[in-house]
Amino acid sequence: MTDTYDPTRTAVLLVDPYNDFLSEGGKIWPAVRQVATDVGLLDNLRAVVAAGRRAELRIAFVPHRRWQEGDYEDWDHPNPTQRLVQERHSFARGTWGGEFHQDLQPADGDVIVQEHWAQSGFANTDLDFRLKQHGITHVIVIGLLANTCIESTSRYAMELGYHVTLVRDATAAFMPEMMHAAHELNGPTYAHTITTTTELLRTLENGDH
Amino acid sequence: MTDTYDPTRTAVLLVDPYNDFLSEGGKIWPAVRQVATDVGLLDNLRAVVAAGRRAELRIAFVPHRRWQEGDYEDWDHPNPTQRLVQERHSFARGTWGGEFHQDLQPADGDVIVQEHWAQSGFANTDLDFRLKQHGITHVIVIGLLANTCIESTSRYAMELGYHVTLVRDATAAFMPEMMHAAHELNGPTYAHTITTTTELLRTLENGDH
Amino acid sequence: MTDTYDPTRTAVLLVDPYNDFLSEGGKIWPAVRQVATDVGLLDNLRAVVAAGRRAELRIAFVPHRRWQEGDYEDWDHPNPTQRLVQERHSFARGTWGGEFHQDLQPADGDVIVQEHWAQSGFANTDLDFRLKQHGITHVIVIGLLANTCIESTSRYAMELGYHVTLVRDATAAFMPEMMHAAHELNGPTYAHTITTTTELLRTLENGDH
Amino acid sequence: MTDTYDPTRTAVLLVDPYNDFLSEGGKIWPAVRQVATDVGLLDNLRAVVAAGRRAELRIAFVPHRRWQEGDYEDWDHPNPTQRLVQERHSFARGTWGGEFHQDLQPADGDVIVQEHWAQSGFANTDLDFRLKQHGITHVIVIGLLANTCIESTSRYAMELGYHVTLVRDATAAFMPEMMHAAHELNGPTYAHTITTTTELLRTLENGDH
Repeated sequence: MTDTYDPTRTAVLLVDPYNDFLSEGGKIWPAVRQVATDVGLLDNLRAVVAAGRRAELRIAFVPHRRWQEGDYEDWDHPNPTQRLVQERHSFARGTWGGEFHQDLQPADGDVIVQEHWAQSGFANTDLDFRLKQHGITHVIVIGLLANTCIESTSRYAMELGYHVTLVRDATAAFMPEMMHAAHELNGPTYAHTITTTTELLRTLENGDH
Repeated sequence: MTDTYDPTRTAVLLVDPYNDFLSEGGKIWPAVRQVATDVGLLDNLRAVVAAGRRAELRIAFVPHRRWQEGDYEDWDHPNPTQRLVQERHSFARGTWGGEFHQDLQPADGDVIVQEHWAQSGFANTDLDFRLKQHGITHVIVIGLLANTCIESTSRYAMELGYHVTLVRDATAAFMPEMMHAAHELNGPTYAHTITTTTELLRTLENGDH
Repeated sequence: MTDTYDPTRTAVLLVDPYNDFLSEGGKIWPAVRQVATDVGLLDNLRAVVAAGRRAELRIAFVPHRRWQEGDYEDWDHPNPTQRLVQERHSFARGTWGGEFHQDLQPADGDVIVQEHWAQSGFANTDLDFRLKQHGITHVIVIGLLANTCIESTSRYAMELGYHVTLVRDATAAFMPEMMHAAHELNGPTYAHTITTTTELLRTLENGDH
Repeated sequence: MTDTYDPTRTAVLLVDPYNDFLSEGGKIWPAVRQVATDVGLLDNLRAVVAAGRRAELRIAFVPHRRWQEGDYEDWDHPNPTQRLVQERHSFARGTWGGEFHQDLQPADGDVIVQEHWAQSGFANTDLDFRLKQHGITHVIVIGLLANTCIESTSRYAMELGYHVTLVRDATAAFMPEMMHAAHELNGPTYAHTITTTTELLRTLENGDH
């Protein structure tokens, strides 16, 4: 882990830190609980964001579309995940499930990007544009889910020319083999760095930047 | 498999059908040989393209950047795969490895899109634009590799609003668990249909469109 | 005007129909009043939207970013228009100026796209994606301003593969020569049809579709 | 003109410097000759590129699609300019007209981007990606035509988050009023700087960067 992160060029992308994903009582929490608990997800998300703030990295919130009445209903071909969101009302706008976790709240200067309709936080949103206005060239992508939104956001980041860092234990998935696929099979083909929360914090705090 | 394919709206995207990937003597053939042989890749690619032509689907060739002198050399952060291409000279322009397999050649009316630098055939190319000029809304994505270019091209297709079909045995990967990840773990989250060559041919040939 | 509009493939893009632009008392109304009055802008916008609804075209609202506290403040290089918005608080969120004109309100089934930060309704938004999910290939672009948001949205539409119709008197600008530039100098180089409200209504109402 | 250009962040985008546009005998030269001669276009293009090289700015060649047999023929709706290209075989591949002017040739380290199908050098090409791999945030856009490819490339650059400089006399158009529209009516709404060759050279050569 000899990568270093210039704070003027690096952003932490915090993807979908919703109560529905992260909190007891959230609609999708039961499906991620096992992996999330095993890796220490919430502690690690808190730690990466806090370390990012100390290192003066830009923090960007990258939220999924909050479901609202009418969404997807007259679309020609919503994808399977969108059909589930339509049924379950995941991240419903105006509900607790569609709010960010209480420990992962925006602060002044953070970038709150437009909501994404599917998996990639860059697709059909202003994420790339907002990062450019802050001079960002390197992104550290954390949040949920490892093999869907984190992976698509990260694949897009690479295609858009960004340097991409994945953090193995600052994400989760429905099954351990999805984590394996994300970090051992697919991540190494497109991401520039795959690290852990502990290692990332060491890098950020060593002033290696 | 009750999906049907309107020939006026459907294209087959044939990704990276290079000798380096598909032919004895190709640079990357040794790494894909086992899976490719197990699934009957070359026969299936020939069969899907032929059936697509009979059903009058649009065929689009979606080629990776053919390596040439200077590529990647002064880039700030090529990704790991690009570094390998730079070392190995994969799909080198002007060489046999960088030519399409002799059984997978363009015909009149096919769309030959610009070369992609990384994994997604849509990123930084004219693929979306060319499909729009042919009224395409549904894509069947075949070729190589299942968990890299096929997956990124398909993830992008979904984000761009296309209906996406994957064909399990008209692709290959370096390891069987990468095929499993592509078709059992990740594909179901973004693709609209995951089928086999046999089923796809039955659909196309039943005139179900 | 032999173009016809298939209602299953055509959308009206209504760009920035804000009180700040269209209503007495709006912040930018004084700057567009002369041209808007001369062409009969508001009547024509009402007429095109109404005719579009009767012809069962999809109506898409394409709104500029509503100014809110903090916007642009820490950007590296907002453009000149963004600096003006920052000073004037144009289309301020939560104010009357940032509401759609009372006669140009969304109805059930309309598409409300994400807000754009600059001139093109396609840039950094979900407009292309939303149109694809409705099978749209042809767009009729109306609203404000002729040489900024209408022109950039239309230039983008063409580059993205859409058939583009401009309507000379369903838009306005700060000066008559900007209208001339939009419709006589630039429009003919990228738009497929440049028409008037009267002609467009005749086409839509003749059932020529 | 107090802007300065950090050579590590700035690129000159040289758009469509083809013989068909710039040289006696070129297919489109008669249509641009008057304006091009009046502004001293060729001398100014040579001067900006030379000054850019001395200041160690990145030079990017941004070429229009070179016409080849079959182009546009089965498209659903080529735009008016594309229909003209189809008739005239503008910038025909393999011909002198489709070659860069002899005084505007690529050098080692220049970026040669994919060909664009319409007006914007960013649309459906790898231009944004290639600029990102060189850390570019500021672009100086020169070449042809002022109100078509230069304007669309520049409007896109702004939407993509770049700082945009136009150079009044390092471009041309079919009519003087098109130059006026580009630099007096439209440019000021999206470009960050509008300058002249003389002023730009002074800035670049003063080491103001």
